[in-house]
Amino acid sequence: MQSHLFWLVPAASLLALGFAAFFYTRMKAQPEGTPLMKEIAQHVREGAMAYLQQQYKVVAIVFAIITILFAWMAYGLHLQNKWVPFAFLTGGLFSGLAGFFGMKTATYAAARVAHAASISLDQGLKLAFRSGAVMGLVVVGLALLDISIWFLVLNFFVADADPSHKLLTITTTMLTFGMGASLQALFARVGGGIFTKAADVGADLVGKVEAGIPEDDPRNPATIADNVGDNVGDVAGMGADLYESYVGSILATAALGAAAFSQINDPVSGFKAVIAPMVIAAIGTAFSIIGIFAVHTKAGATQRDLLNALGRGINLSSVLIFIASFFVLKWLGLPNYAGIWGAIVVGLITGIVIGKATEYFTSQEFKPTKDIAQNAMTGPATVIISGLGTGMLSTVVPVVAVVVGTTLAYCLAAGSWHFSPASMSMGLYGIGIAAVGMLSTLGITLATDAYGPIADNAGGNAEMAGLPPEVRMRTDALDSLGNTTAATGKGFAIGSAALTALALLASYVEELKIAMIHAGQKTMDVAGEAVPIISATLTQFMTHFEVHLLNPKVILGVFLGSMMSFIFCGLTINAVGRAAASMVEEVRRQFREKPGILKGEDKPDYARCVAISTLGAQREMVLPSMLAVATPVITGLIFGVPGVFGLLAGGLSTGFVLAVFMANSGGAWDNAKKYVEEGHLGGKGSPAHKATVIGDTVGDPFKDTAGPSLNILIKLMSMVSIVTAGVNVAFTLF
Amino acid sequence: MQSHLFWLVPAASLLALGFAAFFYTRMKAQPEGTPLMKEIAQHVREGAMAYLQQQYKVVAIVFAIITILFAWMAYGLHLQNKWVPFAFLTGGLFSGLAGFFGMKTATYAAARVAHAASISLDQGLKLAFRSGAVMGLVVVGLALLDISIWFLVLNFFVADADPSHKLLTITTTMLTFGMGASLQALFARVGGGIFTKAADVGADLVGKVEAGIPEDDPRNPATIADNVGDNVGDVAGMGADLYESYVGSILATAALGAAAFSQINDPVSGFKAVIAPMVIAAIGTAFSIIGIFAVHTKAGATQRDLLNALGRGINLSSVLIFIASFFVLKWLGLPNYAGIWGAIVVGLITGIVIGKATEYFTSQEFKPTKDIAQNAMTGPATVIISGLGTGMLSTVVPVVAVVVGTTLAYCLAAGSWHFSPASMSMGLYGIGIAAVGMLSTLGITLATDAYGPIADNAGGNAEMAGLPPEVRMRTDALDSLGNTTAATGKGFAIGSAALTALALLASYVEELKIAMIHAGQKTMDVAGEAVPIISATLTQFMTHFEVHLLNPKVILGVFLGSMMSFIFCGLTINAVGRAAASMVEEVRRQFREKPGILKGEDKPDYARCVAISTLGAQREMVLPSMLAVATPVITGLIFGVPGVFGLLAGGLSTGFVLAVFMANSGGAWDNAKKYVEEGHLGGKGSPAHKATVIGDTVGDPFKDTAGPSLNILIKLMSMVSIVTAGVNVAFTLF
Repeated sequence: MQSHLFWLVPAASLLALGFAAFFYTRMKAQPEGTPLMKEIAQHVREGAMAYLQQQYKVVAIVFAIITILFAWMAYGLHLQNKWVPFAFLTGGLFSGLAGFFGMKTATYAAARVAHAASISLDQGLKLAFRSGAVMGLVVVGLALLDISIWFLVLNFFVADADPSHKLLTITTTMLTFGMGASLQALFARVGGGIFTKAADVGADLVGKVEAGIPEDDPRNPATIADNVGDNVGDVAGMGADLYESYVGSILATAALGAAAFSQINDPVSGFKAVIAPMVIAAIGTAFSIIGIFAVHTKAGATQRDLLNALGRGINLSSVLIFIASFFVLKWLGLPNYAGIWGAIVVGLITGIVIGKATEYFTSQEFKPTKDIAQNAMTGPATVIISGLGTGMLSTVVPVVAVVVGTTLAYCLAAGSWHFSPASMSMGLYGIGIAAVGMLSTLGITLATDAYGPIADNAGGNAEMAGLPPEVRMRTDALDSLGNTTAATGKGFAIGSAALTALALLASYVEELKIAMIHAGQKTMDVAGEAVPIISATLTQFMTHFEVHLLNPKVILGVFLGSMMSFIFCGLTINAVGRAAASMVEEVRRQFREKPGILKGEDKPDYARCVAISTLGAQREMVLPSMLAVATPVITGLIFGVPGVFGLLAGGLSTGFVLAVFMANSGGAWDNAKKYVEEGHLGGKGSPAHKATVIGDTVGDPFKDTAGPSLNILIKLMSMVSIVTAGVNVAFTLF
Repeated sequence: MQSHLFWLVPAASLLALGFAAFFYTRMKAQPEGTPLMKEIAQHVREGAMAYLQQQYKVVAIVFAIITILFAWMAYGLHLQNKWVPFAFLTGGLFSGLAGFFGMKTATYAAARVAHAASISLDQGLKLAFRSGAVMGLVVVGLALLDISIWFLVLNFFVADADPSHKLLTITTTMLTFGMGASLQALFARVGGGIFTKAADVGADLVGKVEAGIPEDDPRNPATIADNVGDNVGDVAGMGADLYESYVGSILATAALGAAAFSQINDPVSGFKAVIAPMVIAAIGTAFSIIGIFAVHTKAGATQRDLLNALGRGINLSSVLIFIASFFVLKWLGLPNYAGIWGAIVVGLITGIVIGKATEYFTSQEFKPTKDIAQNAMTGPATVIISGLGTGMLSTVVPVVAVVVGTTLAYCLAAGSWHFSPASMSMGLYGIGIAAVGMLSTLGITLATDAYGPIADNAGGNAEMAGLPPEVRMRTDALDSLGNTTAATGKGFAIGSAALTALALLASYVEELKIAMIHAGQKTMDVAGEAVPIISATLTQFMTHFEVHLLNPKVILGVFLGSMMSFIFCGLTINAVGRAAASMVEEVRRQFREKPGILKGEDKPDYARCVAISTLGAQREMVLPSMLAVATPVITGLIFGVPGVFGLLAGGLSTGFVLAVFMANSGGAWDNAKKYVEEGHLGGKGSPAHKATVIGDTVGDPFKDTAGPSLNILIKLMSMVSIVTAGVNVAFTLF
């Protein structure tokens, strides 16, 4: 038994955190440029930290309430494992820490990147990318740390003579700390998303459209808020989102592994199956660090060169994990290791396919976005119509990729091309490990994501500080690269969320099993027969709970799940609308009361705009978040386990497709505008440009608020169901 | 046994067709007004008929191919009942006939209504409404005729000693004629939807926006096409849609009734359960006719008076069916008749709730639409954003209404507040009969729907013919009433489609049962045991096929179903975009080549524009339609029965929510524009007005093409699965 391989996990965690600290100190040692650059950076930094403080206040209250509820459920009602409240808290804490460090780094890096770009493009790229890598490495480092600590603690404390049962208890308990991460991520995504788009839309509507001043103009009072928004939405929000997918996929897969082998009473293989996803994640982290060092470029690099530079790093990490995971699994001695390795490869490839499809549908180099721009010749209405239509059509590739990928991963891990009840547990484990495979190189893929807003802010800083044109050109090149990586990053985030949610859905059954045993049940009824719970097959479980598609509770759950996705988007989109309206009023007020601002003679009140976005986000983030937490619980109370399964399936499928649609429509509108700005169809200032600006504004809450928030919704609803499985077992109305 | 009650069905059919003929002849006897009015009406009539001819050509080819396939499957491969090809054809034929008569009536009525309005408002209202009633009565009349004939024919020809089995064979065979109706409806909705919005968007973009001429101006070459569009989209499309829901809900309920009692081997109650939905529909038809006669108004009626006049008719019919259905069910002697009556009442109420919610979210008298209009003060982008957000939020009421309604209908019919496997068959029957209840007064509700485009065309005719202002005011009042009824009608169409699709999904199992028996299977395997097929419970069926939510085939099917809804919308929206672009080019060409048109000196070429819309619709309707037909078949071949169930559940839930969202966003944008045109926020010609016009244009394909087409998609996919159940039983890849 190769249990010592587990120690790779804490080792990788420390390695990641060490390199994060290294990149951070190196970045901090760089000069921040002129006094004006420093001042602007200081404004953004303060705004970002002020926002984060507010967000964490709201989060702290919500966490306190939920922790008390969980403690009551665990110690008062005995409906739950006694570790849950603590696991929940650490999950939230570590996710919050990751967001904090990532954003701190990003806000320190922006001016330094602008300064580095004034030396050379390569210096700028490296600094921006390695600052982004701090986020990537902190996320994976803290995630692996949390996993390692809990795994060791629970192994020590959980007393159970039956090793299979012990393993299942440990993994299902650990899964609950995913809910802490999930809830933290929800606030980060929803709050950050509302903040950033309220500022962006507000800044554009008054600045660009009414006052006719360019983007990032220091005369616009909302411009600092806009730059703060990039950090809180795209850095902290994206980081928390992927932290959750990462942790969720590893823990769900561990629980599925424990379950698959507990059924056939093979605890030795069970242990291997539990640590396999952790070990894969650990070695992926090491390869991510190698990949990060491979990213550099030359002087006078073109856009293609820059893209290749990033691609080189990611490809290197992927190839290394592709090869190494085979040998690790073989060494671990997991049964059917070749098939499980196949599932990992399928996960990696699925991620790449989704990324490429996103690029195709949202980049102005390809037909779909060019067609949307072409529609600008007949006005904004046709831009919107074609953007919506194209976004809807673009869902086909990611969905088919996930369907094909899931089928392959299932069959490879199950070791059979026919779906049979006997191999179902291993097949589901394969789906989980495919998600782990997709996320194994998160250290570097997340670095690419966090790079985007850093480059964007560097550009903003250079513009506001009035740096010379050749520097602006370099920061523009870096920024433009960031737009491409942002779009593919969104696709990747959605795809991995979908696979993770699938794995979570499957592991919900394991939580039910534990909850039933916890409640003193030893057998369950399947068609009049008493079947021992611990050795029941998945089919028997589902038959016992009547989770089939003719049970109206299941179907109505699916309806509610689909509705939840839309409601959630509607709430967040309207929240952006309201917050943006307040921003518009504030900017108009400042222009009106201090006419000197527009002439460049008077200083706008940046802090006020930051405060408005903060307040808007804080006020608007609570309702959608509470809805996401309450719906699975209420559905469970009314319709029981079948209703919850339906809710999760409906929410997952509709949420996934809707998220892809929104992200791609938004991305395509953004780039259709860029396409016109590059000089096509009349270029800047033409009627076509105005039409595409309207498209871009509509797309803002789509791609940066509602769409990404859905990633969390689909995972959080599963997490809440997992954590409240005890309640579902104990009580149902119908 | 009260089998003579069945004769009410053919009697009601003849009554409906008789009154349709009566209203039609009375309408034709009215004068058509001035020669100019006649000429315009003639243009519209010719255009509509030319379009319908083209559509039927495409439909005829598709029907021929599918009929041959079905014949091969039935007689060559023995995978299917030998009646299916014929049933399929009559379903398509009768639906096509209903569309033809409805549209013929509408195009003859428009000018006559304009003329009648020049006498009095009451005359105009009555003529428009009774012309609409022709459509309503033809639809229910032909539907009941088709049902009666097939029921009698099959009762005569199906030879089976076991009466339970015979009843199940008859009802499942009849269900397949729903597919003919469904496919016909798809072409009518998709083709009609593309035609009407290509004309509308094209006419608006060049006419209103570029040339600055008002709506329905005879100088606009696309204006006749726009009026033709109202007829083909809103009359023929809506009629075919509801014909399908009507037939589908009655037949699915009959099959569910036969199944529920065949399980407990009670053919006497089974027969009652089979004819109950037919009889309810029959008496509902009689009450619809009474309601139609109750619609009239007085001189100088306000908008509220007009709305009340229509409401009076519908309410009268509803109250009558509410009371009478209780006694009919009691007389029929169906077991638990009070519970089943409760389910009918629940269906009626659910329909009313959905209608009211639609009105609230789309009428400019209420806050949501006013808020959207308010957003016009910051430009078109915020109008679009808030319209999308509000549309998404508006899905909550219809979904919750359907969830609550379904639960109640299920529990009432099952006679228990706890969902148990034993009562599941009766519960599903309850869901079916709730759909029948909702649709029982279709004769009058459809009259209200068809009234809208007739009034709209009357207004167009009056405008183009230059009738005096007081007549214009009256036709405007009638038209405005039509807008309100159109919005609630759309909500009703979606809600009834969702309930019907639910009933169809449930009856898919019965088709599988028959297909298994047909294939020579007598028992099936449930957890290692052989269970006789004919007496297997639904839970045993679902366990045998592993249709539970942990089977990846089911989950992936749900993903594909959700995706299908979006793909389908994307295709139809883009189709409108492309066809509208051709229209814009044509109108621009006419204005350019004949400058006299805009001066009113030269006549535009109306026919050319009609031809362009026709061609666009014809070309674009094929791909989405084929996709809807092929997807269930392909999913079944790859993932088998579990995949098909998943596909249907995912398509139904996502499609339902998406359809509500699109219809309500579109309706709200339309009325936000009207709100501004009424003089608010700057009134006509103000920047706010321009912003809302853009919103309205975006909403056009939402509410009139993509949204309504989804109603058909969710029903058609179930119908295709039902008809190809034999294939699913015979073959699956995984």
